[in-house]
Amino acid sequence: MQQHLRYLARIEAGIESFLLPADTPPARLHEAMRYAMQGGGKRLRPVLVLAATDAFPRGPDSADPLPAALAVECVHTYSLIHDDLPCMDNDDLRRGRPTVHRAFDEATALLAGDALLTEAFALLANHYATRPALAHALARELASAAGSRRLIGGQMADLLAEGKSGTSAGELEFIHLNKTAAMIEASLAMGGACAGASRQESESLRTAGRHLGLAFQIIDDVLDGISDSATLGKTAGKDARAGKATYVAVHGIAAARNFACEQTEAAVSAFRRLSGDTAFLTSLAEELLGRIR
Amino acid sequence: MQQHLRYLARIEAGIESFLLPADTPPARLHEAMRYAMQGGGKRLRPVLVLAATDAFPRGPDSADPLPAALAVECVHTYSLIHDDLPCMDNDDLRRGRPTVHRAFDEATALLAGDALLTEAFALLANHYATRPALAHALARELASAAGSRRLIGGQMADLLAEGKSGTSAGELEFIHLNKTAAMIEASLAMGGACAGASRQESESLRTAGRHLGLAFQIIDDVLDGISDSATLGKTAGKDARAGKATYVAVHGIAAARNFACEQTEAAVSAFRRLSGDTAFLTSLAEELLGRIR
Repeated sequence: MQQHLRYLARIEAGIESFLLPADTPPARLHEAMRYAMQGGGKRLRPVLVLAATDAFPRGPDSADPLPAALAVECVHTYSLIHDDLPCMDNDDLRRGRPTVHRAFDEATALLAGDALLTEAFALLANHYATRPALAHALARELASAAGSRRLIGGQMADLLAEGKSGTSAGELEFIHLNKTAAMIEASLAMGGACAGASRQESESLRTAGRHLGLAFQIIDDVLDGISDSATLGKTAGKDARAGKATYVAVHGIAAARNFACEQTEAAVSAFRRLSGDTAFLTSLAEELLGRIR
Repeated sequence: MQQHLRYLARIEAGIESFLLPADTPPARLHEAMRYAMQGGGKRLRPVLVLAATDAFPRGPDSADPLPAALAVECVHTYSLIHDDLPCMDNDDLRRGRPTVHRAFDEATALLAGDALLTEAFALLANHYATRPALAHALARELASAAGSRRLIGGQMADLLAEGKSGTSAGELEFIHLNKTAAMIEASLAMGGACAGASRQESESLRTAGRHLGLAFQIIDDVLDGISDSATLGKTAGKDARAGKATYVAVHGIAAARNFACEQTEAAVSAFRRLSGDTAFLTSLAEELLGRIR
């Protein structure tokens, strides 16, 4: 728990110091970028980056994972800003505050999202400049996870499934593997890369990330069905009203809970296959599951 | 002229072979990405990448600039897709065809733009994987040029200036330097990087790009004022109607023509300072200017 708070403090301080000041011209754009990034939230993905690095012994080739963690959070935040836009989910509330297009305007939200996606790659390029091979590996991992076959592909498939009756289990898995699990896999793999993880260790991290990502998405679906907006910090019960293809809608809430347990167990097994100290990562996975127990 | 056609053929073939097939799931997303990329246009930026590489003698460290050229075109195309959206310029026509949100829908256009921006970094990471230092240098150049202080900053400033009376010459220069010149500078610098250009040569390329970019934007402003939509392939006279801050609006058409000449001359001078063969680049700069002569 103390460790989790230390990670969160590092991330919040990193956001504060690595992002451009809010008065950088054009100020409205940089204000919107900071507004979106400073919205709090669980910071799950950057915590996973930092924790994955710490799971390995610190060697002479270890690099500070913080810029990589912030790059991942930039990508996640951009995807939320664009996802909330009127032409997508049209949401007014995110992490308990007005969404960026409600606090500013649609054009500013669009551009702030674009800028955060670009900033993610700038962070990697600038902060690992003395380690170009690492910078390259991190950029490759991030670009792949955030690309048209993974994160964006998952969002597109999610959109296409909306309101359509009879989403298949396979379509649902495509959405979850890509919309959610891709960036969680990448977070763990990027943390591993900063620690100099071997190819095999990276694969174990990706496997763990895939299971953890699936568990996390199902937990989110269950919470959307059983919580209120104040608890969630975003509009509750919205998935069902929007006719979203969720695990709960396709398989029912009991099956969803079971599936979340299974996927969490699989993630924990994958973490245990790593040689390093994965106590934090396994307890984080179990804590996430605890939200719906 | 033959050389120009050869560059264009390489770029079109590269778009065809490097982009994911249109039936890659989710197909609608990949169709939209291809639709946007295959819209033709001058391909000015990727031509500049290829030509900048060719301005230097081919050495043992030279790399194929085509993936870098395509990455630049992906970023340019994404910026046009987002710029055309209803919350931005709300344009129906681009390169003589319906804009992406008109041919598909707004959400698909938003995601196709996001995907092309991400794909630009994936192209660099994947195609220069055996040259991580080069991959890193290219990603750094592109992320900087496309970021919140340059390309996106210029678009934001452009938007803020719209309909505002009395845009100053300084504000206008900020818009043009960032919205247009940034990516033209980066195109030349990235082409130079693929040829192993020295730091000093890269600086000359950036200087040339800045002048060429300013000239190109003014030429575009003048053409918007004097051409019809069929000639432009996009809605003509729109800048004036939208109250856009253009050089023509601020300084008048005669001053705009003079400024375009001066900037073209400055670009040509910078090209001549390079040691290599810049005949193609100088004639391209003069040809662009010829459109308003």
